[in-house]
Amino acid sequence: MFVQIFSTGGTIDKLYFDALSEYQIGEPMVDELLRDARVGFDYAIESLVKKDSLELNDADRELIHTSVAACPHDHILITHGTDTMTVTAAALADIDDKVIVLTGAMQPARFRDSDALFNLGLAVGALSTCQPGVYIAMSGKVFAADGVRKNRVAGRFEGV
Amino acid sequence: MFVQIFSTGGTIDKLYFDALSEYQIGEPMVDELLRDARVGFDYAIESLVKKDSLELNDADRELIHTSVAACPHDHILITHGTDTMTVTAAALADIDDKVIVLTGAMQPARFRDSDALFNLGLAVGALSTCQPGVYIAMSGKVFAADGVRKNRVAGRFEGV
Amino acid sequence: MFVQIFSTGGTIDKLYFDALSEYQIGEPMVDELLRDARVGFDYAIESLVKKDSLELNDADRELIHTSVAACPHDHILITHGTDTMTVTAAALADIDDKVIVLTGAMQPARFRDSDALFNLGLAVGALSTCQPGVYIAMSGKVFAADGVRKNRVAGRFEGV
Amino acid sequence: MFVQIFSTGGTIDKLYFDALSEYQIGEPMVDELLRDARVGFDYAIESLVKKDSLELNDADRELIHTSVAACPHDHILITHGTDTMTVTAAALADIDDKVIVLTGAMQPARFRDSDALFNLGLAVGALSTCQPGVYIAMSGKVFAADGVRKNRVAGRFEGV
Repeated sequence: MFVQIFSTGGTIDKLYFDALSEYQIGEPMVDELLRDARVGFDYAIESLVKKDSLELNDADRELIHTSVAACPHDHILITHGTDTMTVTAAALADIDDKVIVLTGAMQPARFRDSDALFNLGLAVGALSTCQPGVYIAMSGKVFAADGVRKNRVAGRFEGV
Repeated sequence: MFVQIFSTGGTIDKLYFDALSEYQIGEPMVDELLRDARVGFDYAIESLVKKDSLELNDADRELIHTSVAACPHDHILITHGTDTMTVTAAALADIDDKVIVLTGAMQPARFRDSDALFNLGLAVGALSTCQPGVYIAMSGKVFAADGVRKNRVAGRFEGV
Repeated sequence: MFVQIFSTGGTIDKLYFDALSEYQIGEPMVDELLRDARVGFDYAIESLVKKDSLELNDADRELIHTSVAACPHDHILITHGTDTMTVTAAALADIDDKVIVLTGAMQPARFRDSDALFNLGLAVGALSTCQPGVYIAMSGKVFAADGVRKNRVAGRFEGV
Repeated sequence: MFVQIFSTGGTIDKLYFDALSEYQIGEPMVDELLRDARVGFDYAIESLVKKDSLELNDADRELIHTSVAACPHDHILITHGTDTMTVTAAALADIDDKVIVLTGAMQPARFRDSDALFNLGLAVGALSTCQPGVYIAMSGKVFAADGVRKNRVAGRFEGV
């Protein structure tokens, strides 16, 4: 299995800039996380966008769609902000010849108690075992892309 | 999905005792890891054994087998030392009505750069999506239990 | 040595609220950090304020001054945001019978690569060995309170 | 302040070798820790020995003594195993023109809850403020080298 990874920003990649006393989205953390994970598969990472997912617009989703559709590989992992992850997943629903899994994090990967590393593992588990289609791997569950929503108050994804 | 977790020791649970200048196996780390992971499923954890997997004997594997077979739940996660993970997996092969996933870690979960959290995510991904059977989730891959070995020199699991 | 610790907020205590996609100041991290540090001295922690130090006002500094002056102990550790740490230190300059050390962090203590734990150690080292007076322990150095400024661009404290 | 750092092994530098199911002493962690600490002083690191401190012999201590005595810098930080830290400190007692601070860790620096980063901060605090002499910075305290012992059962250093 070769995994093509597209990063789009989101909480998972957030770091803290003291000079601004605020967060910003940094370089994709996924490579560092996969090295910690000591994975035995090959992968490539391409950073498409670096945005909070609330700020992703139609042009960004067009770029994500084009990149996934044009990708010669069958296993696609997308790291993404959680707030509009389902919107992007829906926009990819017509691509039916690839296993596409979106994941992200509720806490930045740079945090000691982040869910990022677990979520990546969950997403890779889904990539390894699912049929072609679009999935969201969050909150310890693998959801079909059209059967999930983020419960913002509870801080987790749940089936609909 | 309700997940019954059985812990059996192994590197994932190792801590460091200064007074002995050596490692020992501590309490199961899986609960702390799943809380970091902010999972949305329910689970229970039972500690069956606390051993390096090289020290597991027939009686230990008998206990593991009995516990899994008697469990009323369909999704079983076993944390286990890596050196004889395939042996225990083989001993469970006759249980064909449950999804059983074994995982562990090459580096103790207490390490900053451990693979433990990722591996747990990978195992939960497999639990969520696999048919009944016995699987090993390690090195970023989900293996059928009879199609994998640990390459001790390379420090990873690979297909056979 | 008994150490009275006053926390006032700042980056060291920042956590990330997904529901708001932003940082907020959480409970003081100093107790958790000192337990990791396995310190052999006794201490008490009192949370005086929970603010970014840019938002501290005269009333806050009055409260800090009163609390330090009234404290029956000789060794005072103050965790504080970095942007106005020198201002608060100056406001304490008239208290000359105690060793007072201010410290904080450029990266939240919850980050894996935070400077918080080191800075606390540095501050305790200063508390243990300095004469009464007000000190700032940051950037690997112990400064007299009136001989230091924060270089915001470089992201460190330096002598003046 | 320029700090010359000599590493000699010990728990602080221990890593876990899966292939042996045991600990071994790795490369010095001090550089990575000081980068997390974002220190503003210059330093150099020289690895003299890589041993559990119970295994240090007279020749090792001779090498440490020679290296410290010959060093052109005034501020010397030594990372060292905890079990015989006081023995090495005693062997350096005749060097009276430098500030020499020994520190180490009860838990490997690679652990998430290690005391290593705090202890380094404590040692740097002592280096910054102490008169020439030999000191041990452990358990949140700065000890004169001849006034401290390790309480192995309690897992901490205490005054004698």
